[in-house]
Amino acid sequence: MLVSVGDLPVPASQVDEPDSLVAHFGADRPLVMDCGSVIAPWQIAYQTYGTLNAAHSNAILICHALTGDQHAANRHPITGKEGWWSTMIGPGLPIDTDRFFVICANVVGGCMGTTGPASLNPETGEPWGLAFPLVTVRDMVRAQAMLLDHLGIDQLFAVIGGSMGGMQVLQWAASYPERVFAAMPIATAAIHSAQNIAFHEVGRQAIMADPDWRSGHYLQAGVKPSKGLAVARMGAHITYLSEAALHRKFGRRFQDRDAPTFSFDADFQVESYLRYQGESFVERFDANSYLYITRAMDYFDLAADHGGVLANAFRGTRTRFCVVSFTSDWLFPTSGSRAIVHALNAATASVSFVDIDSDKGHDAFLLNEPVFFATTRGFLDSAARAHGL
Amino acid sequence: MLVSVGDLPVPASQVDEPDSLVAHFGADRPLVMDCGSVIAPWQIAYQTYGTLNAAHSNAILICHALTGDQHAANRHPITGKEGWWSTMIGPGLPIDTDRFFVICANVVGGCMGTTGPASLNPETGEPWGLAFPLVTVRDMVRAQAMLLDHLGIDQLFAVIGGSMGGMQVLQWAASYPERVFAAMPIATAAIHSAQNIAFHEVGRQAIMADPDWRSGHYLQAGVKPSKGLAVARMGAHITYLSEAALHRKFGRRFQDRDAPTFSFDADFQVESYLRYQGESFVERFDANSYLYITRAMDYFDLAADHGGVLANAFRGTRTRFCVVSFTSDWLFPTSGSRAIVHALNAATASVSFVDIDSDKGHDAFLLNEPVFFATTRGFLDSAARAHGL
Repeated sequence: MLVSVGDLPVPASQVDEPDSLVAHFGADRPLVMDCGSVIAPWQIAYQTYGTLNAAHSNAILICHALTGDQHAANRHPITGKEGWWSTMIGPGLPIDTDRFFVICANVVGGCMGTTGPASLNPETGEPWGLAFPLVTVRDMVRAQAMLLDHLGIDQLFAVIGGSMGGMQVLQWAASYPERVFAAMPIATAAIHSAQNIAFHEVGRQAIMADPDWRSGHYLQAGVKPSKGLAVARMGAHITYLSEAALHRKFGRRFQDRDAPTFSFDADFQVESYLRYQGESFVERFDANSYLYITRAMDYFDLAADHGGVLANAFRGTRTRFCVVSFTSDWLFPTSGSRAIVHALNAATASVSFVDIDSDKGHDAFLLNEPVFFATTRGFLDSAARAHGL
Repeated sequence: MLVSVGDLPVPASQVDEPDSLVAHFGADRPLVMDCGSVIAPWQIAYQTYGTLNAAHSNAILICHALTGDQHAANRHPITGKEGWWSTMIGPGLPIDTDRFFVICANVVGGCMGTTGPASLNPETGEPWGLAFPLVTVRDMVRAQAMLLDHLGIDQLFAVIGGSMGGMQVLQWAASYPERVFAAMPIATAAIHSAQNIAFHEVGRQAIMADPDWRSGHYLQAGVKPSKGLAVARMGAHITYLSEAALHRKFGRRFQDRDAPTFSFDADFQVESYLRYQGESFVERFDANSYLYITRAMDYFDLAADHGGVLANAFRGTRTRFCVVSFTSDWLFPTSGSRAIVHALNAATASVSFVDIDSDKGHDAFLLNEPVFFATTRGFLDSAARAHGL
């Protein structure tokens, strides 16, 4: 069952010279960040699928989740696997690249080509490490808006994303309402809960407890806090699945044996699976990026940014929304999506809400969920007609 | 908010010479374990409260949870805090020491005086470490039964415990039905779920990832895998609380500040709380014990031990049961208690079932829950009358 990542063609770092399109921004277009820092030069790595029409009116921005990246619908340059949303984006698929021009960019703070803590700090010639400014979801969205300027796209037909991607969708609708015709926040919330913060904090502590983290300076030392990052990933992975999904996938079945070994080997399939999740993740992800991006999610509180009233974030919006949740998602439960819908209703926005019956947990938005596919297709069809596409 | 544990009077190790009563068993009374190993000499550390009556008919055994110990209702010799069930056990309290003789013993595999991986292995003169045999819940119960023999108690009036303590209660009822008049399994399950195993595995991996773990030989080296154990504790602690409890206790309130620091400091109160939970835990708990006891819980599957039919574990029992669950407990949810009740019903056992409305999560069984206190008092009163006490 275990696949050795070592067998795959792992290229050199994707951090500074990614296998992607890259938009470079110089000192004339610095990134101004919520924490008060300004970085320049900086870059954003992105992928596109489909063709931008003459009116530049058919662009869809896909926002990725915590451990996602811009490789949404192509083979991943490190893992060799299909893109994380290759079931959703493509010719004839719900996000139909025969009709739409789809863009997906690595977030600021990431490690797949957009400037982040693993990137070289031009002032020192060394990786930024913890000298990189703290990132917020709003910073991620601000950077994406600059990418759209670079691409000559004034308005997005749609912005779509799940989990942290959904936070970006909400931030887009709040920061740039005139630039978003339709918005689809999926399996997300307008606020990161105490429990969400708590799980993230455990992951960060696991990384920082690894002596190879070296207070964030591991790249200079030629090491990686792989064990700590793997533990962080394992813990987080449990929160992405429902108890029912874990039970169905693994139950208490033993791995390659019929009885317990009475040892600390991975007796149970679920243990072996988690260990594999941890080990494979560290091959493609930077530990400091994990710290930064989890922190960005922790800081997300869209109501607090608008006088404590979430509806104020959407006052006067003409964006049409489709809010999606999954019944077994306990990390971003339906109640969080319902709060978004209530705020949108209070702001008299156009909104539809679909709570999809699924036992797959938070990860459902990445999996084969026919009702979710149909919902996405239907919402985009309807919005495209209204948009004259 | 942080209390320095260093300020407390921390005695030398409680592992071999605990501040408790200790029953010693020599080569004539070895502990025969499920994995096939036999250990001797071995010892069991325990506390008692109240007075054993002349008929030896008023004994209640309290079974502790994963990170609990025998100090249920007295000041803890390491932390200086009140016992973990001091609200439940005492004169006039629900488990009334004016009426009952209460015994609580540290489990086999523990680190508070009962033989476990931190104890000296008489054959080598060094701590057992990973050479200690894997422990099961049935082994813990077998050791407790030998303690009762030692104390001259043929039958327990009651056996009571929550979480892993509840697993021991179920095992007592299954292994020694004639020795248990009444049984109260609380916030527990007859089987450890895939999700439960997954959370435990992450904790174990966090410990094993700590270089100071030294493949289990840290005591010989004079070090402790404190960082790894703290991470394990932090992750586990989240599972003990409900999302609602975390929200009520902490929400997104900042710690000693009004705005985010844009750093990896513990900005949020929930982070500071978790860090404290991790740091204080390592002062009183042995990392290898954590590995062993989590593993014992993972292996627990009472139905599998009885031909796959849980009711078979209780066939013909005359024990009276009171099964308790808490509505917001997502680690040991109500459904698990209901499965126990169904099995007891199928075995035509005497059983009452109380699902207590609480938003405190799994930890509710350790907290001030008036309905739970009343339930315990009522069940014991009624059973005492039936028992002629």
